[in-house]
Amino acid sequence: MGKVIGIGLGPGDPDLMSVKAHRLIGAARHVAYFRKAGRAGQARQIVEGVIGSQAIEHAMEYPVTTEIPVTDPEYNRRLAAFYDDWSERLTELAANGDVVVLCEGDPFFYGSFMHLHSRLQGRAEVEVVPGITGMSGCWTATDRPITWGDDVLTVLAATLPEAELARRAADTDALVVMKIGRHLPKLRRALEQAGRLADAWLVERGTMPGQKVQRLAAVAGPVPYFSIALVHGQGRRP
Amino acid sequence: MGKVIGIGLGPGDPDLMSVKAHRLIGAARHVAYFRKAGRAGQARQIVEGVIGSQAIEHAMEYPVTTEIPVTDPEYNRRLAAFYDDWSERLTELAANGDVVVLCEGDPFFYGSFMHLHSRLQGRAEVEVVPGITGMSGCWTATDRPITWGDDVLTVLAATLPEAELARRAADTDALVVMKIGRHLPKLRRALEQAGRLADAWLVERGTMPGQKVQRLAAVAGPVPYFSIALVHGQGRRP
Repeated sequence: MGKVIGIGLGPGDPDLMSVKAHRLIGAARHVAYFRKAGRAGQARQIVEGVIGSQAIEHAMEYPVTTEIPVTDPEYNRRLAAFYDDWSERLTELAANGDVVVLCEGDPFFYGSFMHLHSRLQGRAEVEVVPGITGMSGCWTATDRPITWGDDVLTVLAATLPEAELARRAADTDALVVMKIGRHLPKLRRALEQAGRLADAWLVERGTMPGQKVQRLAAVAGPVPYFSIALVHGQGRRP
Repeated sequence: MGKVIGIGLGPGDPDLMSVKAHRLIGAARHVAYFRKAGRAGQARQIVEGVIGSQAIEHAMEYPVTTEIPVTDPEYNRRLAAFYDDWSERLTELAANGDVVVLCEGDPFFYGSFMHLHSRLQGRAEVEVVPGITGMSGCWTATDRPITWGDDVLTVLAATLPEAELARRAADTDALVVMKIGRHLPKLRRALEQAGRLADAWLVERGTMPGQKVQRLAAVAGPVPYFSIALVHGQGRRP
């Protein structure tokens, strides 16, 4: 009997995956990863050159990403069926040996693997290997510490309502905002209301080719999925 | 001319340092690390077996840790002099080649290296290698995801006043509390006021030998420095 091993790949630079992740991925016989249908998939791209020639690949293609709003019950129904199906398939594969599931960032921090992890309980042995989060990669890219001394850090998704974003941005020392995409104009207004816009940075593709670090106020256009906004804490420092 | 390279070691398990960290540390000629006077030092212990025989070690011993309260100006004065002194010494070493500074967790997330980083600006070239945070190691140890869907995550230090801890614990989905030590009884009362005590976990020495995962409500005694409290988010899941 094998295990299903959810492995954090880190923020994107393959050199930032852990020694353990590198070893397990290089030796794996079965490697599964999520991707949008018709795309190469970010997770798969990160392990190019790491994955062994013996590996059998399993692309888990999301049945829906942004075509249906997340509030539509149909979105939920389709995704639940997708995770049910893959947890079944991974359980079968694990009966004959370890199966590796590639996870961008850290598997337990806003990751898709969690939806398999919960379904696999009691059916297969599951192991999780943590990874460097995308936000760590992004604040490192700004070359400034995110938290000092007793700073409070708040991590938000830009999908929240504008007033909620503004309230929380005003009530924290350091701020990280994920899932920006088409919510950038709303986030910008919320940061302005909170008095934090002048100190906000936007990092696109942190640690990856094409990395871009800009003042958020200067960013006009649409931003890629791998974008994170940051406001650095200013806490105690000797 | 060399660089001063602040390297994140991750949460404690040497297998969880990045491929890049492992390579740079193994090849380094000068390796510096913080430690409490008279102790081996956690960072140095993590790299045992990784560091090369050619390495010259520089133990940077804190002049004060908990002997003086952080609110005493003398605490600040002594630490500032310590960081001034070591940034001078590292600048001199870097004139002849790269110098590695070992950092537990991620260097820019509540780390001591930041106090060198700010002082080295304009004097030496500085590079930072991110690492897996201690909190990632701890939530992985609980075998439960920390954030789902649009969950808000708040990261706090237990050094904050009780009322502030309680207010923030009540106003977040997921919670991470660092720097617990002697503040455990206060944190416990704050979590109780916030209605979060029953869902709180305490992880001691996450990913390290002697790792301990317990319900926080069940923990009576003093806890080691490497302890993190967690309340997992319960957000949207298909």
